[in-house]
Amino acid sequence: MIDPLERWRDRHGLADKPDYAGLLTYAGMPYTQDPAELDGIDVAIVGAPVDDLVSDRPGTRYGPRAIRAASCPPGPHLEARIDWAEALRVVDYGDAPIVPADAARSLAAIEATVAEVLRAGGLPVVLGGDHSIAEPEIRACAASHGPVGLVHFDTHTDTGAEVFGVEVSHGTPMYRLVEAGHVAPERYVQIGLRGYWPGEPELAWQAERGITSFFMHDVRDLGIEEVVGRTIDIVGHGPVFLSVDVDVLDPAFAPGTGTPEPGGLTSLELLRACRAIASGLELIGADVVEVAPTAVGSADVTALVADRIVREILTGIALRRRGVS
Amino acid sequence: MIDPLERWRDRHGLADKPDYAGLLTYAGMPYTQDPAELDGIDVAIVGAPVDDLVSDRPGTRYGPRAIRAASCPPGPHLEARIDWAEALRVVDYGDAPIVPADAARSLAAIEATVAEVLRAGGLPVVLGGDHSIAEPEIRACAASHGPVGLVHFDTHTDTGAEVFGVEVSHGTPMYRLVEAGHVAPERYVQIGLRGYWPGEPELAWQAERGITSFFMHDVRDLGIEEVVGRTIDIVGHGPVFLSVDVDVLDPAFAPGTGTPEPGGLTSLELLRACRAIASGLELIGADVVEVAPTAVGSADVTALVADRIVREILTGIALRRRGVS
Amino acid sequence: MIDPLERWRDRHGLADKPDYAGLLTYAGMPYTQDPAELDGIDVAIVGAPVDDLVSDRPGTRYGPRAIRAASCPPGPHLEARIDWAEALRVVDYGDAPIVPADAARSLAAIEATVAEVLRAGGLPVVLGGDHSIAEPEIRACAASHGPVGLVHFDTHTDTGAEVFGVEVSHGTPMYRLVEAGHVAPERYVQIGLRGYWPGEPELAWQAERGITSFFMHDVRDLGIEEVVGRTIDIVGHGPVFLSVDVDVLDPAFAPGTGTPEPGGLTSLELLRACRAIASGLELIGADVVEVAPTAVGSADVTALVADRIVREILTGIALRRRGVS
Amino acid sequence: MIDPLERWRDRHGLADKPDYAGLLTYAGMPYTQDPAELDGIDVAIVGAPVDDLVSDRPGTRYGPRAIRAASCPPGPHLEARIDWAEALRVVDYGDAPIVPADAARSLAAIEATVAEVLRAGGLPVVLGGDHSIAEPEIRACAASHGPVGLVHFDTHTDTGAEVFGVEVSHGTPMYRLVEAGHVAPERYVQIGLRGYWPGEPELAWQAERGITSFFMHDVRDLGIEEVVGRTIDIVGHGPVFLSVDVDVLDPAFAPGTGTPEPGGLTSLELLRACRAIASGLELIGADVVEVAPTAVGSADVTALVADRIVREILTGIALRRRGVS
Amino acid sequence: MIDPLERWRDRHGLADKPDYAGLLTYAGMPYTQDPAELDGIDVAIVGAPVDDLVSDRPGTRYGPRAIRAASCPPGPHLEARIDWAEALRVVDYGDAPIVPADAARSLAAIEATVAEVLRAGGLPVVLGGDHSIAEPEIRACAASHGPVGLVHFDTHTDTGAEVFGVEVSHGTPMYRLVEAGHVAPERYVQIGLRGYWPGEPELAWQAERGITSFFMHDVRDLGIEEVVGRTIDIVGHGPVFLSVDVDVLDPAFAPGTGTPEPGGLTSLELLRACRAIASGLELIGADVVEVAPTAVGSADVTALVADRIVREILTGIALRRRGVS
Amino acid sequence: MIDPLERWRDRHGLADKPDYAGLLTYAGMPYTQDPAELDGIDVAIVGAPVDDLVSDRPGTRYGPRAIRAASCPPGPHLEARIDWAEALRVVDYGDAPIVPADAARSLAAIEATVAEVLRAGGLPVVLGGDHSIAEPEIRACAASHGPVGLVHFDTHTDTGAEVFGVEVSHGTPMYRLVEAGHVAPERYVQIGLRGYWPGEPELAWQAERGITSFFMHDVRDLGIEEVVGRTIDIVGHGPVFLSVDVDVLDPAFAPGTGTPEPGGLTSLELLRACRAIASGLELIGADVVEVAPTAVGSADVTALVADRIVREILTGIALRRRGVS
Repeated sequence: MIDPLERWRDRHGLADKPDYAGLLTYAGMPYTQDPAELDGIDVAIVGAPVDDLVSDRPGTRYGPRAIRAASCPPGPHLEARIDWAEALRVVDYGDAPIVPADAARSLAAIEATVAEVLRAGGLPVVLGGDHSIAEPEIRACAASHGPVGLVHFDTHTDTGAEVFGVEVSHGTPMYRLVEAGHVAPERYVQIGLRGYWPGEPELAWQAERGITSFFMHDVRDLGIEEVVGRTIDIVGHGPVFLSVDVDVLDPAFAPGTGTPEPGGLTSLELLRACRAIASGLELIGADVVEVAPTAVGSADVTALVADRIVREILTGIALRRRGVS
Repeated sequence: MIDPLERWRDRHGLADKPDYAGLLTYAGMPYTQDPAELDGIDVAIVGAPVDDLVSDRPGTRYGPRAIRAASCPPGPHLEARIDWAEALRVVDYGDAPIVPADAARSLAAIEATVAEVLRAGGLPVVLGGDHSIAEPEIRACAASHGPVGLVHFDTHTDTGAEVFGVEVSHGTPMYRLVEAGHVAPERYVQIGLRGYWPGEPELAWQAERGITSFFMHDVRDLGIEEVVGRTIDIVGHGPVFLSVDVDVLDPAFAPGTGTPEPGGLTSLELLRACRAIASGLELIGADVVEVAPTAVGSADVTALVADRIVREILTGIALRRRGVS
Repeated sequence: MIDPLERWRDRHGLADKPDYAGLLTYAGMPYTQDPAELDGIDVAIVGAPVDDLVSDRPGTRYGPRAIRAASCPPGPHLEARIDWAEALRVVDYGDAPIVPADAARSLAAIEATVAEVLRAGGLPVVLGGDHSIAEPEIRACAASHGPVGLVHFDTHTDTGAEVFGVEVSHGTPMYRLVEAGHVAPERYVQIGLRGYWPGEPELAWQAERGITSFFMHDVRDLGIEEVVGRTIDIVGHGPVFLSVDVDVLDPAFAPGTGTPEPGGLTSLELLRACRAIASGLELIGADVVEVAPTAVGSADVTALVADRIVREILTGIALRRRGVS
Repeated sequence: MIDPLERWRDRHGLADKPDYAGLLTYAGMPYTQDPAELDGIDVAIVGAPVDDLVSDRPGTRYGPRAIRAASCPPGPHLEARIDWAEALRVVDYGDAPIVPADAARSLAAIEATVAEVLRAGGLPVVLGGDHSIAEPEIRACAASHGPVGLVHFDTHTDTGAEVFGVEVSHGTPMYRLVEAGHVAPERYVQIGLRGYWPGEPELAWQAERGITSFFMHDVRDLGIEEVVGRTIDIVGHGPVFLSVDVDVLDPAFAPGTGTPEPGGLTSLELLRACRAIASGLELIGADVVEVAPTAVGSADVTALVADRIVREILTGIALRRRGVS
Repeated sequence: MIDPLERWRDRHGLADKPDYAGLLTYAGMPYTQDPAELDGIDVAIVGAPVDDLVSDRPGTRYGPRAIRAASCPPGPHLEARIDWAEALRVVDYGDAPIVPADAARSLAAIEATVAEVLRAGGLPVVLGGDHSIAEPEIRACAASHGPVGLVHFDTHTDTGAEVFGVEVSHGTPMYRLVEAGHVAPERYVQIGLRGYWPGEPELAWQAERGITSFFMHDVRDLGIEEVVGRTIDIVGHGPVFLSVDVDVLDPAFAPGTGTPEPGGLTSLELLRACRAIASGLELIGADVVEVAPTAVGSADVTALVADRIVREILTGIALRRRGVS
Repeated sequence: MIDPLERWRDRHGLADKPDYAGLLTYAGMPYTQDPAELDGIDVAIVGAPVDDLVSDRPGTRYGPRAIRAASCPPGPHLEARIDWAEALRVVDYGDAPIVPADAARSLAAIEATVAEVLRAGGLPVVLGGDHSIAEPEIRACAASHGPVGLVHFDTHTDTGAEVFGVEVSHGTPMYRLVEAGHVAPERYVQIGLRGYWPGEPELAWQAERGITSFFMHDVRDLGIEEVVGRTIDIVGHGPVFLSVDVDVLDPAFAPGTGTPEPGGLTSLELLRACRAIASGLELIGADVVEVAPTAVGSADVTALVADRIVREILTGIALRRRGVS
């Protein structure tokens, strides 16, 4: 394990390092790629830099690196008044060894990497990558925990049986996970749906399976707090995966994504909602996906908000472990 | 008429094609530039790629192509639960044959092209272009339908008698249309005004003519739903043109425009308002103007929201025709 | 003094010039760099193009030029119905003679330039520059007016005793000003705080000194109007400095800044708040800081909103002088 | 078939239309997607918007549309004094019906589309897309013409047996084509190789097969004219495919590509070389690949130079048919 | 007259100011907009921020401001060993009072402004703006000096009788100036022509009038030094205008222009050629046109090279006045 | 020490990993920040992410990360036919622990980090950072090796005694190093000088000290090979530092730098020259500086060419150690 902060602490007695200097890890957390070093951790950040299975704009292969570059040092959450980095042992477990132009090997590598974190008792937080990664991630979680609940922020349901005739796609993971029994549909809630996809057959399938959908017009009419409250009630006890597609945000807040859809959530709404979900439910894994940065640097606003989503999740986990949810 | 989807349907049995492949038409709609092929259509999309008459930043000549590139395949509107492309016969009628550096010939070409659509019984939806195109468009509409009502989303009133001494400008069309009798001022409602233009003389003229203005501070205080409701009441029965200047949105939501003004509408507000106007009034034409994309690709967020504005209008029209408004 | 509008007025009889042509001054205001010409002015715009003391992304050295390029001609405020340029005598007093890579000389030059404005009886409005400039600005104000009240819009408190061990930094001016007695802590209000900085020691120091903080979650829960109203009550009578860090806005509204933090104010909220503060309190100086434009042109949305912040301040001052606050 | 120029000719009597207006086809050429309309054509432009098989940066899926947007109306070549659009019957045959995230179906669709052009007696000029498209293209050509000669401008040899273990990749087409007997290795010349790939095994295989390589250092030492002359001698009589990977250019001239390598050709060198090859050899097909534009508009310099490469090829073909090579 | 350097000199004793601070004038030269202050000057820089008459991409209205922003302080030319700012009295005479969307008034304003410089005995160096500005500029020069010689660096001849039927265009000034007798065709030399415009009729007209053209292939074959030498011989004695369209450079060196054409000059070639022309001939005026910056800041490479073209011209003039040409 | 390739090798048997995935180190080299692990290495890459001491555009603080992101896996040099990564033991030693806004501590940290490499017998190759870092780097080298020779590619001499009155600046390191005796002036050669800085006093000082300067006009007239040959002769035997400021390249080839100057070297020229210098002289250290990327991703062309400069240096060192120089 390597601690990027070491040189700054040793030489200057500093408790932080500048974001733009030193080894690039998530929020300056220690880095390891050795499963043996995962023992005793609470959370492992895992990168899944893939975009092979998108139907429109590529670029999410740059997501994990961009989110790491946009992440800043930890500190106390100014509303929650807790510092996740003090409350939790977090490591950056690096990227899964994905292979360009070979989606099957990449998804298998992601599943194996997530499984290593779970085996060590850690909670994986995956930085995507397109949404196809949800399938191997959640399959690994279900292998450990049994069928999981799912809270899914997104513009799209991602419950197609196929997209352009392709069955393993960024538009199909949730369909496949439900059908395979890895996600319990009655504990599966979608938030933020809008736009022009999917069509009636997919919506009918969802209704049949008992999936709950909060459309964007529901958020507008009920308010995000009410939607989050109902979500927590519906999902209830048991293991839960939280999957956040950044395109649930309005493109004003997250332009760097492959299939943006105007009329979405604000950052103010989403960030708090993620914290509430993470502190209010039994999270066993999470991801933030579909970050397709236009620049892989600290100036990329989409990667920035993706980082803050991760932080709210970490803060929520920290709150829950302190019994403050 | 050419159907861009044909090859995908014939070879792969697909109901859609990828946004980035195939002939570039609005939402993959069939393309024709032959007036004889307009018979029986409901709506024709027309491009007006001009920016000769702007007072500040140019670039709207790239608007129509950018909106087409940002448009995605149709599908059911997730709130309204209707698919405009199934409910309406829509074609892309191409761009009016505008001429660079010759505003007079360009505006005449726009008027003639819109008139062809109207003659075929179609409803023209024009992709701008700077706002000077409203004059020839609405003149053509008034020639068919008599003086029209006007719902006008904008930061600016566009009711100058001149801008920098220029009488035909993107800042003067509404003044000219009212004075020429093509727009009925008592059925003319402006929504979203803010900033530092126009001055008191223009506002006095507006008051005198009986034009209704909802400033952005009215939207803030009344809410967009109330403003839309009042607008529908004021405009009432009879033919109506809907003109949407994307700068009515806050620059966060539509940065790619020539004279952006902070403090504007959100996409969530505007999109629903457009649908409500289109389903609640007797639309005979519409435009979306002042899209000055910084990139002519699917990543341009301003073109993207402009596409969604068009879709809400189409959805509203479809709803009205089904009697659901 | 040079009036950039002169040629347009003389040759064409125009009351405005295009934004992109003519001498680059703030809103086309007359330019002088001669202190003797400041007599009788109400407001002087001063640029402070520095970024030597930032802890993360540089670029604010381009802020003043970008704000000037984004500024448009004055006109009546469409809500307040007053034209600041008619109500006030405003000049562009140019940039303080800062020196690259020499923060000490730069800050001294800023202090001296602000002092010149104050000596002439003018109200300085400074275009930053990173937030370190607040220290020399407010020191100059306190030298003229005695300890001042402070309304401070920001994501961060900027009350560190040091940042990375550096005592004069863009993260420390408010600590230093309070400790030096230039800011009266009981008349110091912060609005918009969020994210992960500062830590508990700084917050404890703030509480001890009696500084009032409205966090972003307070704005969410109370509404911006209530927060502004309480701020005006707390600050009360006496000289007040208004310091606006554009990162108080959500990055959707102001992406061009060095340490953006999602979950912030909207432009609609901030602009009105600035006007209310400026009309409701005894302003003796103001700044807009941390504008790090990505492009120094009229298309930069962060510079644009920074310009509008300046205008709301000017409008508020104008309202107050007319007794309309 | 649709002629984008029609409206401009009919209404204004113009011989050209503006680049940014009207139906988006290559150089404003007529568009058809009906194989029956290919009869009698000389050249068909075909788009292959894919990037599934890249090993590094994606984005070439936007290549065809960007090249069309960058293309301007034809006219006489100022050095060759011939107008390809007058000398040749050229159509834009649209994009092959590729399928996102399904490389196998996409490559088959490209092969079928190219075969349609060849069946009609036309010469296909394909706009890529990543270099994996060379395999189906040239396989279709070899099916019509027997094993072909190949002139291949590139930084990389693209003769890997695999890349990251993937056998069908943008790094392997030339290996596969030679091994399958579609390219005659003794009539295969590579120009512009440089950098750090491939390794010795691939170079040994090339030598064994009798492939000729002109490295960039050969171009530097011999001059481009000498290299082109030798190439024409080596390839000699018989059908030849010309494949131009834009990364053969120095990144200064073509930054928008997936694996740029400094130290390459200038545009001045490459453009003339392409014309010389096209006029000096029996071309039966050509492509321009690896255009990964950063903006899909007329401002993208890589798409622009790709357009000019196409034009030089067309000019060379025109010259040859006039017997002027 | 205002000297932007004053504050730096007075406060810090510095001989230069930073490029990004202080009043924005060309190379920090003194600014005046008062014709009376032109007496005794050698050169006046004039901006012509127009793009009304372009046939393709707009944006040159931002050229003058971008060139000023890219310009750095003067100093000795490291090859010529002369400092133009010491050898010549240069002022920035500001922008001509152009009017948006009114090309006729704009061109008249440019002509008048250039005439004021000439009347004061100064040599105007105009920063464009599109190439249509050459007509009023050279007309003003011919009014003072009689018919002038012309050295014209460009991709295009700009000798159309019309472009899209428009007679006053950025593609027609040279035709109009020759026909009107303001340019002596036998003393008119074009350098750098390439691409696909104009057609044979224009070339025939040029030949008939006795205009000399060095195509880019001539530069390639003869070398730039030989071309410049022959140009100086052909133009010979008498007043000469130097007009440099930045698109004569390859887009690698000047991407920010409206109609870029690959295969052009390098900066190394053009810069020295401009100096040689300016020192070898009797220059009475010059311009640098078609700078359409993508960003109006010091990072814009096209504006940067445009600045250096201006400097080489100034250096050449300085050399000639010292008798060193 | 961590080997970023490990997971790819272990899981997939691959010899490389994708550039965009896995731990971000230079060319995927092993990472260590422990001086004890430097034993036995040949070369250590060190980052120096600073820009505190620039006189114009900042941004080089992002240089090291951008160069690492742009670097690709090693392989055999296609001209030199040697693979530096096989011939040399190279590690990425991370960034020196620089401190934002504290140049003195940052330069000391750089000196200490370079000294650690030298103590271990390694050759430091430093990724800048602005050129001020040359002073601590070379001071550390001279402390180990005595006064060093210096080959210095640059537009500017960087031999000011001060810049804007600042003595430790990116414009002064070479003056300070010569005056302090760390660089032997008779073994100091500058290549590529051009533009308008420095002035005659600095050039006089250089001449007096016996420094050799090859201006860009010398390169143009003599050719780069001749210049390199003479340089090797002049520097001769003894320890040599190679310092490459990327602004020696024309901005076409390296736009992302703080003070670009048109008319510079091509990549083709510079890359070979660096290899020749590194193989022909006794290199004891090197740097590549002034990389101010506009995007910190693999698409940044300036970082890309900077990476290739590093590779040519490594290749040259490898050649020399094999006795092939």
